[in-house]
Amino acid sequence: MADKILMLILDGIGDRPVKELDGKTPLEKAKTPNLDKFAEKGVNGIMDTIAPGVIPGSDTGHLALLGYDPYDVYTGRGPFEAAGIGLEVKPGQVAFRCNFGTIEDGKLTDRRAGRIKEGTEELAEAVNNIDLGVDFHFQEAVEHRGVLILKGQGLGAKVTDIDPHETGVGYHPAEPIVDDKENKKTAEIINEFTKKTVEILSDHPINKKRESSGKPPANIILPRGAGAVPEMKPLSENKGIKGAAIAGIPLVKGVCRMAGMDIIDIEGATGGLDTDIEAIIKGIKSNIENYDFILANIKGFDILGHDGLPHEKIEFIEKLDENLEHLKDLEDIYIAITGDHSTPVTVKGHSGDPSPILIHGEEVRWDEVAKFDERSGTKGGLSRIYGKDVLNILLDLAKIGEKFGA
Amino acid sequence: MADKILMLILDGIGDRPVKELDGKTPLEKAKTPNLDKFAEKGVNGIMDTIAPGVIPGSDTGHLALLGYDPYDVYTGRGPFEAAGIGLEVKPGQVAFRCNFGTIEDGKLTDRRAGRIKEGTEELAEAVNNIDLGVDFHFQEAVEHRGVLILKGQGLGAKVTDIDPHETGVGYHPAEPIVDDKENKKTAEIINEFTKKTVEILSDHPINKKRESSGKPPANIILPRGAGAVPEMKPLSENKGIKGAAIAGIPLVKGVCRMAGMDIIDIEGATGGLDTDIEAIIKGIKSNIENYDFILANIKGFDILGHDGLPHEKIEFIEKLDENLEHLKDLEDIYIAITGDHSTPVTVKGHSGDPSPILIHGEEVRWDEVAKFDERSGTKGGLSRIYGKDVLNILLDLAKIGEKFGA
Repeated sequence: MADKILMLILDGIGDRPVKELDGKTPLEKAKTPNLDKFAEKGVNGIMDTIAPGVIPGSDTGHLALLGYDPYDVYTGRGPFEAAGIGLEVKPGQVAFRCNFGTIEDGKLTDRRAGRIKEGTEELAEAVNNIDLGVDFHFQEAVEHRGVLILKGQGLGAKVTDIDPHETGVGYHPAEPIVDDKENKKTAEIINEFTKKTVEILSDHPINKKRESSGKPPANIILPRGAGAVPEMKPLSENKGIKGAAIAGIPLVKGVCRMAGMDIIDIEGATGGLDTDIEAIIKGIKSNIENYDFILANIKGFDILGHDGLPHEKIEFIEKLDENLEHLKDLEDIYIAITGDHSTPVTVKGHSGDPSPILIHGEEVRWDEVAKFDERSGTKGGLSRIYGKDVLNILLDLAKIGEKFGA
Repeated sequence: MADKILMLILDGIGDRPVKELDGKTPLEKAKTPNLDKFAEKGVNGIMDTIAPGVIPGSDTGHLALLGYDPYDVYTGRGPFEAAGIGLEVKPGQVAFRCNFGTIEDGKLTDRRAGRIKEGTEELAEAVNNIDLGVDFHFQEAVEHRGVLILKGQGLGAKVTDIDPHETGVGYHPAEPIVDDKENKKTAEIINEFTKKTVEILSDHPINKKRESSGKPPANIILPRGAGAVPEMKPLSENKGIKGAAIAGIPLVKGVCRMAGMDIIDIEGATGGLDTDIEAIIKGIKSNIENYDFILANIKGFDILGHDGLPHEKIEFIEKLDENLEHLKDLEDIYIAITGDHSTPVTVKGHSGDPSPILIHGEEVRWDEVAKFDERSGTKGGLSRIYGKDVLNILLDLAKIGEKFGA
């Protein structure tokens, strides 16, 4: 009988030697008896999510880990953000990530409109009433965030961001990055869109009320991260499996939804440092019976890497490790534990350093490595592998893989 | 002066840890002083024939080891089976593997016509007299086996098997897997072919005689494994070498013939468990002077993997090892020993687990590994390599390889 598959993605887990940790990485320094037990009974290695030295995003990284070629399917973040908040997107459409912002006398004073929490639904309704001459949909998301989908024909996705990513300046009219008809059309449309959001939102009652109570009005929508919605065969077709994802952040949810996976919502799985790891582990255990494959993403490591906080990263790693105790009694399952990219505290951002990887399960060719970290992995039986191969390796181990040839 | 090259393919040698072998693989458990001596003096590694986790067939596996991309040249088993029994096949043709079967009142009663041994030549002659409106050739092979080649123009190879792979049911009319003109045409032709084989064979004197002596008549031909004959440049052109193959089974012979290699027939090399390994080794030694490169395939490991018999697999490995004594005195040769895929006794089928590989010869960068097995290989100097690279590595070592660049 086929076994189950779990891919536990410790987002940004990989790091570099840190001086104040005596040249160890946070993962090397952390006390991780449970991860080490999995490593001891498993087969270990290091993994280049896309390719050695290539710095993955969370989107391109997860695409690779699900067996897609990000160079084929990825042109920008927008479509995955849209899918991540539950919108249906279709090949041919172009999607943008957006912020509600505040503009005064032609200059941005706040890129997040005071992290507005209420009233965005009404503001979005007004935005959707704009007449652009092409079909579009704007959807508010958490706080100041939103998504714009252009549904017209012949649209390009290679246009610059309207969001200037700073305040004190005007918004940047979008320009085609590749100068052709399709991209020009898209640039014109979102320039018109942005202009009209200012017109329509400035006098909106919600904003009048905000201003009267001293809050910055949400009087502009700032699109960025244009991306063409790709054609992606679902995992059920590509790999013959039914998959589900547990993830805190919409971007990862979006990638998984686009791969045809169900999204399992776990209360308390926030994608932040406060995320309820125990609830995530329990969620995996209570749902695995219904799926061939679950991908669970835990984000905190990445946040602390971005913030450059080695000791806090160690603490978060140890908190994860304690909770892995609950995974140990799962049977008939192959578990891969790895990252989608490294986020070294010394880099304060993603890096192309390989991530450590372990695969645990009944029939793996376990090796002599008994510690889960960046350098121990280099001595393991997996050697150095690519992200695109991880799911195939798991499918083969779980006896779900299909033979190519006779 | 250039050295010779030998690729010794231990078909299905790779395995997984087996409980009743105390967590060792059959190869780890077996006593293999000769293999270990080759490993000690050689450079070792693990090898993904196609890619990590991808489960190769014997055909796609050998294609990769000969440097071809199976995703380019492989659409089905038929052409390689045809070439394997010595038929000339040409790009554009579509070939099928076939069985003589027995059908009664529209239902198959025997998929192998009682493993018919005599008279198939006369039956094949009758089949070849069928008027199909397109040029074709049917060739009987060993026992109930045969091959059908369609030689018309505009034929697709993506059609389902006529052979239902079970008895008690009717045969399955072929259907296009991809619904286009070419595949529809092929499906129509082989449906007509199959129908006519029943008409023409049912009253054939050979079958009347079989029935009168209580044997099942061979009164239907059941095509399966449709494949388009690929365009394959011979090794002489691709790699500049003259190659030959020693193999027991037609499928591997066929792949090697399609690669432009000579087939060396060795008496007693059966592809079964009874195969005469000593004769194969002697055959290598007596023929190597005439070639740059010999590939020899020994099949028994795969059979015992399929049958799930760890102890018997160990015995067969030890039998091989004893015979490798005779290889030791070969000079001026680079020898690679590996598998075309793993066939773990726990899987009872092919798997995507990497195969161990050793390369032995004068100038290899020998490493510290002194045992030939799945896990020792992971510590070797070759690290983890792809099947498609093995022949290039050997050509380079043997000083046959040509520089790319200046």
